[in-house]
Amino acid sequence: MDAPTLLLATGGHQIEAAETLIEVGRFIVILFAARALAELMVRFRLPAILGELVAGVLIGVSGLHLILAPELGGQLNALAEGSIAALAHVGPDQVREIYDHGFSNLQAVAKIGLLALLFLTGLESELDELMAVGGQAITVALTGVVLPFALGTFGLQFLFGVPLLPAIFAGAAMTATSIGITASVLGELKFLRTREGQTVIGAAVLDDILGIVILAVVVALAGGEGFSLGPILKLIAAAGVFVVVALFLSRTAAPPFDWLLDRLKAPGEVVVAAFLVMSLACFAAQAFGLEAALGAFAGGLILSGSRHRHAIEEAVKPLVALFATVFFVLIGSGMDLSVLNPFNAANHEGLVMAGFLLAAAVVSKVAAGWSYLSSGPTNRLAVGLGMMPRGEVGLIFLGLGTQTGVLGPSLEAAILLMVMGTTFLAPVLLRLVLADAGEPVEATV
Amino acid sequence: MDAPTLLLATGGHQIEAAETLIEVGRFIVILFAARALAELMVRFRLPAILGELVAGVLIGVSGLHLILAPELGGQLNALAEGSIAALAHVGPDQVREIYDHGFSNLQAVAKIGLLALLFLTGLESELDELMAVGGQAITVALTGVVLPFALGTFGLQFLFGVPLLPAIFAGAAMTATSIGITASVLGELKFLRTREGQTVIGAAVLDDILGIVILAVVVALAGGEGFSLGPILKLIAAAGVFVVVALFLSRTAAPPFDWLLDRLKAPGEVVVAAFLVMSLACFAAQAFGLEAALGAFAGGLILSGSRHRHAIEEAVKPLVALFATVFFVLIGSGMDLSVLNPFNAANHEGLVMAGFLLAAAVVSKVAAGWSYLSSGPTNRLAVGLGMMPRGEVGLIFLGLGTQTGVLGPSLEAAILLMVMGTTFLAPVLLRLVLADAGEPVEATV
Repeated sequence: MDAPTLLLATGGHQIEAAETLIEVGRFIVILFAARALAELMVRFRLPAILGELVAGVLIGVSGLHLILAPELGGQLNALAEGSIAALAHVGPDQVREIYDHGFSNLQAVAKIGLLALLFLTGLESELDELMAVGGQAITVALTGVVLPFALGTFGLQFLFGVPLLPAIFAGAAMTATSIGITASVLGELKFLRTREGQTVIGAAVLDDILGIVILAVVVALAGGEGFSLGPILKLIAAAGVFVVVALFLSRTAAPPFDWLLDRLKAPGEVVVAAFLVMSLACFAAQAFGLEAALGAFAGGLILSGSRHRHAIEEAVKPLVALFATVFFVLIGSGMDLSVLNPFNAANHEGLVMAGFLLAAAVVSKVAAGWSYLSSGPTNRLAVGLGMMPRGEVGLIFLGLGTQTGVLGPSLEAAILLMVMGTTFLAPVLLRLVLADAGEPVEATV
Repeated sequence: MDAPTLLLATGGHQIEAAETLIEVGRFIVILFAARALAELMVRFRLPAILGELVAGVLIGVSGLHLILAPELGGQLNALAEGSIAALAHVGPDQVREIYDHGFSNLQAVAKIGLLALLFLTGLESELDELMAVGGQAITVALTGVVLPFALGTFGLQFLFGVPLLPAIFAGAAMTATSIGITASVLGELKFLRTREGQTVIGAAVLDDILGIVILAVVVALAGGEGFSLGPILKLIAAAGVFVVVALFLSRTAAPPFDWLLDRLKAPGEVVVAAFLVMSLACFAAQAFGLEAALGAFAGGLILSGSRHRHAIEEAVKPLVALFATVFFVLIGSGMDLSVLNPFNAANHEGLVMAGFLLAAAVVSKVAAGWSYLSSGPTNRLAVGLGMMPRGEVGLIFLGLGTQTGVLGPSLEAAILLMVMGTTFLAPVLLRLVLADAGEPVEATV
């Protein structure tokens, strides 16, 4: 059925009413579910992001069918479809058509949230603290990137016969540590200001940079450039140059930015100026053949030296709270967890693969703790566990991988489980290890 | 040419790169132009919103053709089209196709900005201060709504032969006073805390409420319900009930909202909770057959009594600064000002109509100043001038009227000129009048 014809068959006012009800209704469902589950998680002292992912699963294609990307097919939730049809005086067929037609708006908003989140991550990167723990953090960061990437990629390829490109994608999704989750748990346990804690955060920042560079390269490869060495080296070089320029600008661009910002008088200048810097960095990254995500992170790095950094953070946080939530919920909503149903024999290989990915993700980052170059007594297990939660950047890999269509349902579900598993295990295990370690230390001091 | 076919003819990676470049590029152009012109206006002590509208005109269909809604036709800016094509390695035809395809995302973001702006307007309504000046404000507000509405509607109908529905739309666009512009100019001139100043603000809040109610009714009528008295009365009753319920909730719903908000622990709770209230109010309004805009305003009113009101304002302001700017720029960008070119004889009637609308808008609000019930010496001219700037709500009428297609290019351009003219004249004339009046008062005290 042709879209415009059907839409014109009913009065414009009913169509617009249905559009608004659907768009607003989707927001309500997403925010309400995400918030309810996030509150639940926080009460169990687990990261809020875990709740947002579970919320997505519950209202998406594996659950209530309230949030359903058009490309997934499937029936919309009948109750919701019927309610919108009744309220807007349109037919159920039209509800589905308007629903599908406007879904890209939701995805566009999610993308703004993703970019704002990466911008904020870059903005909050403590480059100076990173320099202070530099040497020790670098070995942990490099091991923590190379080990999971190699274990994930080659394990999937040789144990499960996954083709090279999706295997690389999954391996890359295992590289980046979630700074936010680690920092909040370490802070809560008073471990953040220890030498180990600072090293974990430094290594996590480096992992983010390396992970996003890998992302930029891998997504470009997935776009069909193939696997000849030339383009890969060119992309890595471009990404390297891009990050170096961003680091250089983070040392030099803040004063002129502040000078300009101090001279702006129309209200809302902080958020608009920050958004312009982020947008320009995204545009530059994409024009270089890299990912906009790398640009957003670089934009944040560039402004991390600004005197107005705190004001920028405060202005960007509401955008992240609203729209990055939409991004995480959309990821959960698109996951078809029926491929992991253990009662279906056809799924057993997929389940084993998901188990392997989770185990590899845990083991490889914990092992990175033992690459910590330190002569004094060191809690290497805590360093390794601190590096474990994947969170945001792993999910960004998953989102972009799903979008390019290289992964397939089993691998998508496996990556989601890996991210959720590490995000769940890291705080739980860290509390166990540091509670055990913490008590005796206090007793001996 | 069929969209999916052409899009699939090129590799997915190039298409995605072009999509990102176009979406990010449009943001850059919009925010940069809006900000540059807003800064210029502020330096001439004129409202920033005037700069955003002029920016839209400069980059839109009457100017550089950088921001161009698909339904307007016309050629994209050749330089921009060629640059995107070269950077993303796609053809110029594809650039145009991707541009048009993603334009609805920009409009969706603008709609979020519009709703956030109305929510903020409702939130900042000082209902208590309104009650204090209630009696005097009501006569000014009612005259200030009825006079422009009657003068605009009947003038257009009888002098220019405009059909009833677009005439009503234009008349309704003349009713609402812009609180933001008036409050900032009165504040700058130290006139805000006078009895007259408080009356102007009180009347402006009432005008906003009345104007948005009229909007909800008029847009529903424009949707093809026709002009039988039954539906009109039903809509007015629904809108009245909706506003009364919102006012009631603004007195009663804040404590339970605050109680809940105090118990939320996951970060970002303020903006998400506020956005949920706004979304629920929008959904309710639309389900009642009214406009989502009325719902957003009501949502703000409901939370205006919250203890967390200041935190909510701070969280919503960045959204407004970014996305309401997009809304205003899009309005300016869609206006075809060639219909006002005075050197084309065919335009003369349209020009006269625009002049009439502006004159009616000025005269009718100034006249409202003389409806001020006051026994003491009163600066009635200042009250009338304070009621003059139309700003946001007038533009919302214009945006929705353009969307429903009832207005036609001449009337759209005339309404834009009316809004821009009053927004420009009000601060200029207020400064003249209050500077004249201010000096002698200081001399006699």
